[in-house]
Amino acid sequence: MRPSARALDELRAVTLVPNPAKFAEGSCLAKFGDTHVLCAATVEEKIPPFLKGTGMGWVTAEYGMLPRATLERTEREAVRGRQSGRTQEIQRLIGRSLRAVTRRELLGERQIRIDCDVLQADGGTRCAAITGGYVALALALRRLQAQGRLKENPLTEGVAAVSCGIWQGDCMLDLDYAEDATAMADANFVLTASGLMVEAQASAEARPFTSDQFAQLLALAQKGAARLITLQKEATG
Amino acid sequence: MRPSARALDELRAVTLVPNPAKFAEGSCLAKFGDTHVLCAATVEEKIPPFLKGTGMGWVTAEYGMLPRATLERTEREAVRGRQSGRTQEIQRLIGRSLRAVTRRELLGERQIRIDCDVLQADGGTRCAAITGGYVALALALRRLQAQGRLKENPLTEGVAAVSCGIWQGDCMLDLDYAEDATAMADANFVLTASGLMVEAQASAEARPFTSDQFAQLLALAQKGAARLITLQKEATG
Amino acid sequence: MRPSARALDELRAVTLVPNPAKFAEGSCLAKFGDTHVLCAATVEEKIPPFLKGTGMGWVTAEYGMLPRATLERTEREAVRGRQSGRTQEIQRLIGRSLRAVTRRELLGERQIRIDCDVLQADGGTRCAAITGGYVALALALRRLQAQGRLKENPLTEGVAAVSCGIWQGDCMLDLDYAEDATAMADANFVLTASGLMVEAQASAEARPFTSDQFAQLLALAQKGAARLITLQKEATG
Amino acid sequence: MRPSARALDELRAVTLVPNPAKFAEGSCLAKFGDTHVLCAATVEEKIPPFLKGTGMGWVTAEYGMLPRATLERTEREAVRGRQSGRTQEIQRLIGRSLRAVTRRELLGERQIRIDCDVLQADGGTRCAAITGGYVALALALRRLQAQGRLKENPLTEGVAAVSCGIWQGDCMLDLDYAEDATAMADANFVLTASGLMVEAQASAEARPFTSDQFAQLLALAQKGAARLITLQKEATG
Amino acid sequence: MRPSARALDELRAVTLVPNPAKFAEGSCLAKFGDTHVLCAATVEEKIPPFLKGTGMGWVTAEYGMLPRATLERTEREAVRGRQSGRTQEIQRLIGRSLRAVTRRELLGERQIRIDCDVLQADGGTRCAAITGGYVALALALRRLQAQGRLKENPLTEGVAAVSCGIWQGDCMLDLDYAEDATAMADANFVLTASGLMVEAQASAEARPFTSDQFAQLLALAQKGAARLITLQKEATG
Amino acid sequence: MRPSARALDELRAVTLVPNPAKFAEGSCLAKFGDTHVLCAATVEEKIPPFLKGTGMGWVTAEYGMLPRATLERTEREAVRGRQSGRTQEIQRLIGRSLRAVTRRELLGERQIRIDCDVLQADGGTRCAAITGGYVALALALRRLQAQGRLKENPLTEGVAAVSCGIWQGDCMLDLDYAEDATAMADANFVLTASGLMVEAQASAEARPFTSDQFAQLLALAQKGAARLITLQKEATG
Repeated sequence: MRPSARALDELRAVTLVPNPAKFAEGSCLAKFGDTHVLCAATVEEKIPPFLKGTGMGWVTAEYGMLPRATLERTEREAVRGRQSGRTQEIQRLIGRSLRAVTRRELLGERQIRIDCDVLQADGGTRCAAITGGYVALALALRRLQAQGRLKENPLTEGVAAVSCGIWQGDCMLDLDYAEDATAMADANFVLTASGLMVEAQASAEARPFTSDQFAQLLALAQKGAARLITLQKEATG
Repeated sequence: MRPSARALDELRAVTLVPNPAKFAEGSCLAKFGDTHVLCAATVEEKIPPFLKGTGMGWVTAEYGMLPRATLERTEREAVRGRQSGRTQEIQRLIGRSLRAVTRRELLGERQIRIDCDVLQADGGTRCAAITGGYVALALALRRLQAQGRLKENPLTEGVAAVSCGIWQGDCMLDLDYAEDATAMADANFVLTASGLMVEAQASAEARPFTSDQFAQLLALAQKGAARLITLQKEATG
Repeated sequence: MRPSARALDELRAVTLVPNPAKFAEGSCLAKFGDTHVLCAATVEEKIPPFLKGTGMGWVTAEYGMLPRATLERTEREAVRGRQSGRTQEIQRLIGRSLRAVTRRELLGERQIRIDCDVLQADGGTRCAAITGGYVALALALRRLQAQGRLKENPLTEGVAAVSCGIWQGDCMLDLDYAEDATAMADANFVLTASGLMVEAQASAEARPFTSDQFAQLLALAQKGAARLITLQKEATG
Repeated sequence: MRPSARALDELRAVTLVPNPAKFAEGSCLAKFGDTHVLCAATVEEKIPPFLKGTGMGWVTAEYGMLPRATLERTEREAVRGRQSGRTQEIQRLIGRSLRAVTRRELLGERQIRIDCDVLQADGGTRCAAITGGYVALALALRRLQAQGRLKENPLTEGVAAVSCGIWQGDCMLDLDYAEDATAMADANFVLTASGLMVEAQASAEARPFTSDQFAQLLALAQKGAARLITLQKEATG
Repeated sequence: MRPSARALDELRAVTLVPNPAKFAEGSCLAKFGDTHVLCAATVEEKIPPFLKGTGMGWVTAEYGMLPRATLERTEREAVRGRQSGRTQEIQRLIGRSLRAVTRRELLGERQIRIDCDVLQADGGTRCAAITGGYVALALALRRLQAQGRLKENPLTEGVAAVSCGIWQGDCMLDLDYAEDATAMADANFVLTASGLMVEAQASAEARPFTSDQFAQLLALAQKGAARLITLQKEATG
Repeated sequence: MRPSARALDELRAVTLVPNPAKFAEGSCLAKFGDTHVLCAATVEEKIPPFLKGTGMGWVTAEYGMLPRATLERTEREAVRGRQSGRTQEIQRLIGRSLRAVTRRELLGERQIRIDCDVLQADGGTRCAAITGGYVALALALRRLQAQGRLKENPLTEGVAAVSCGIWQGDCMLDLDYAEDATAMADANFVLTASGLMVEAQASAEARPFTSDQFAQLLALAQKGAARLITLQKEATG
């Protein structure tokens, strides 16, 4: 029995609330159990310098966490004066994941920036950020289409992320914080609606794992991602 | 007629939601119309160096704003690498305001830190932060008393804050962003349940004002603060 | 009897030395007793980006303190790598105060920057900075007029600042450091030659105060500011 | 034919030079073709605070690149004032990889710090750093054993890293910079002598990939890592 | 004829005002013509970590410049967020120069910190800082002796600094800013009362120079330093 | 007998390896005994703002040290978030030294940047950096000439640097770390092929020195620099 008492292949209760933020062009509050991430999309009519003149757009992300999102308070990054390595790693992952399903040549020379802010953290915040970030992006792009600023939807298909891990030898889906903190390995998978892989990251925390175990983690993730993609369709439908 | 169509002495719809944050020792979501501030209290069993050995505790605050809390996106302070002067000014104000109603000798050598994070910003965020921060503080202290870690409640009375301003010559209460941006002067008052003044800050934005106008602003603030203090009592009751 | 043995409504000896700095376009050494602030105006033929094309000018200020201006040495901000929140709060106040008496449409698209550096600190440095900063600004503008670069004087009237406080229950004018450190409340008022209010800031340090006490502080400040404005006229006359 | 004209499963010429650094406790110059990384181990008789009193040691890494290691000069991180997100991500990966084969309870309360500095960069620098870092670590630990400061070798087995990628539809091993820059996906695998997985990271750069392709990448990596581990044995033998 | 119309071996008018700073333990306002540097000594009963337990003291310095000390305004280092390389180079030079005449074993485990702040800059600020810094140091040490906190004077002899340069082929003493800016080489010498050398720094700005020219510069410096040391004796007498 | 057992006027074994860096426009590995500095030149078709439109080019340098170049590990400057004062002082010296032998009007509006990275440090790193930096610069300029991008060689003559010091009363050439750490004074001289002086820096570490001693140091340096310039000719020949 895993700590959360869920089945090994069972997601937490997941909710994707569309457009909770009054001022953003698109937004989503992604709840994976007690993990709550507010994702807000901003449309900017400018692009990074390396894209000037290419006709291509860009999708990027920033990630943050409220200091008391966590059980123990975490120091505010604005006070420390820099984003941690972990924060930067996560926001780069979110951006890459969303770009992988975006035909940037259809976006034109504009940038969509997705702010993912963790209001409450109970494990899996990067997966909730990617899953909710896709919804915020889709809603912002739909608004651009409705305004006639985009002809065609640049998104090729949905993309979602889910964590897995090995806990006392068992492979399991969607770890909460208590499970993650004691897992011997954990992994994050970013997968598309058609079952393609966008990112895979697996780390031995305490002990290396076999390639068979890795294959089991991937199979669990495929099952979880399919469910998340169904919820994304409802949220943007 | 003021832009928001409210009466000159009319607050926005105000809600103070107690304990929305699962992990904090006390918390409050303060909504002043479309301004939403999440205030979370953390109890720390350590104090700043200058208080060591005095038997006195400390109350302090940090303030932040989600990048897309605002109509136009604001750059993330963790990315810029420092808190702005405005942020530091506000968090010092919140801390001073809460300390003014705290008998720190009753708190013992511990620190309560209040994180005030603006989820949505439509004017008056510092006032919502002080008003909600008091609720978060009161709830955290009550928990300490329930746990037997505090004998007596260190709070002397409630404290709330409200903004006022002069708009086209009229003095008015609780400006929203559109009103604030075009006001010729604005003010913030921090007042206690018994009507005492903790802080007064008034600034001419476009044109100096008379001491009569200042007196009118103070009278409006006294009326608004009384209503906020009633709501605090309900939230902590 | 107050610690400084002055009457409750008595300023310290105040001197405003015009143009002590050889290289600045205008300057003033403001001495409020043992508080000495060197204010130097620099005329810049460029403006902040948000004013480009508006035909309006800008007045801004920076504030600093020599490390050994104080009784105990203060760490150098250039070594710490950032200006403190207090410093930023003060320099924003100085800038706002001077802009309130400047018709910026008469200044043209140029910026006057006022550097206020505290050579010696014995309380009331921000008030000395505003009061001396006005003189430096006026002298720089007069030079621009003499050079034919300005047609009309953009200043509407003089502006000065003075502190007040409540010490052992008594309201008193122009606190020195020893008085300020033990006051139960302190306040800073920025007032114009015609008696208008530009800024009011009052803080309870130890205990909230009544609105009657606030009114007494304002009355003391009005008396003090009138004297400072007389001295400004002599310094710029 | 791949750009480098190597076979799809062919590593570049790899050399692991033991102890090139006169002053370090252990070191290795790892050359993967034109990628040259100098890895130097420092033994520190202190540990991070969270390990104090646990009897456990720590292995950590730092990563850097000479500005002109690359075809186009890269700005020096010491000048920019911070390590990039990419640098931090890589150094965290190196540290995790080496800790996964270290029995930290045998290390005692000391820390081994591995500095990995890229002298020349032609793709795969993080893999060369992990592979050479293991050699530097092993040599430093052997010296500690020779000095009688360690009773038992804390290393469980060798660990090496290699990159793979998908280039024009073909899966291939050990990409150089020209291949990496035009790959549609790339991956890094950290594998042990016994064939276990320590880390897997795969990213779609241009287009998502299938789980079959991922399996091919893993198979290539297993072949390459086996060869690297043979070379490690020679370097430390 | 040199630009300043002085003789080639003529110092500017030099004044060393003792103890102008009310709060410092010792201070000196050093005026070399229009270059004015305020030097203030702070006695600290603690030393840098590397000296703990040695019984030796330390003398160190910090250097700063008011933004409008110069003809064109210089950006404030506290705003830029760091001290420039030039500032650090100068403050290290001041510290080394003063330590060279201090028997640190007589100082005990305390640190004297000399703040040198340039109020007005017309060339030669580092030389004025060293020359005035010695006076501030001597006055602070005398006070320590008078208080019985020091038995013996740790200073071995006076130390002063002066600049020289080659301007249109002529070697000359004590360059002002206009001379320095157009010199083909400049030099700074730190010399003691007995004629020993503490520091020599000579740089070709536009063109290398001969060792004969260098010898002429040194001879000029010896003459100038002798005069400065006489003035130091008067200031501390 | 000096610690290194060399004659007082004897350099360490010096090697200047031309073009060890595959990607740089010119490079040199300068070995002064166990001090190894990699110098790499980058040609940039842009210049600092203050040179725009002058037709003049620029030569600048950056300096760094691998953390474990030294006997005891040194903290990485990219981690500390800034270059030390020492680093900045050295890189300014390298740039000035190379500019002194460059006719910048022949370089055109381009900048050559010399990165000097210390791989191993045993004293005299700044001298090795200048000596090797000249070779890297010369090789890069020759390549520009070969490509027809430069008509004439902008270098006027060779420039080299060497350290000297006073150790137990004896003047000696080219101190290694053990000698430097215990010297009572040390000096660095930058000299040209024709015997001119570009820079002289001498510091009393423990005790002031006489002008006679200074003259002996200079004579030793002239001898050493002549040998270094011969080696430069071979490396660039």
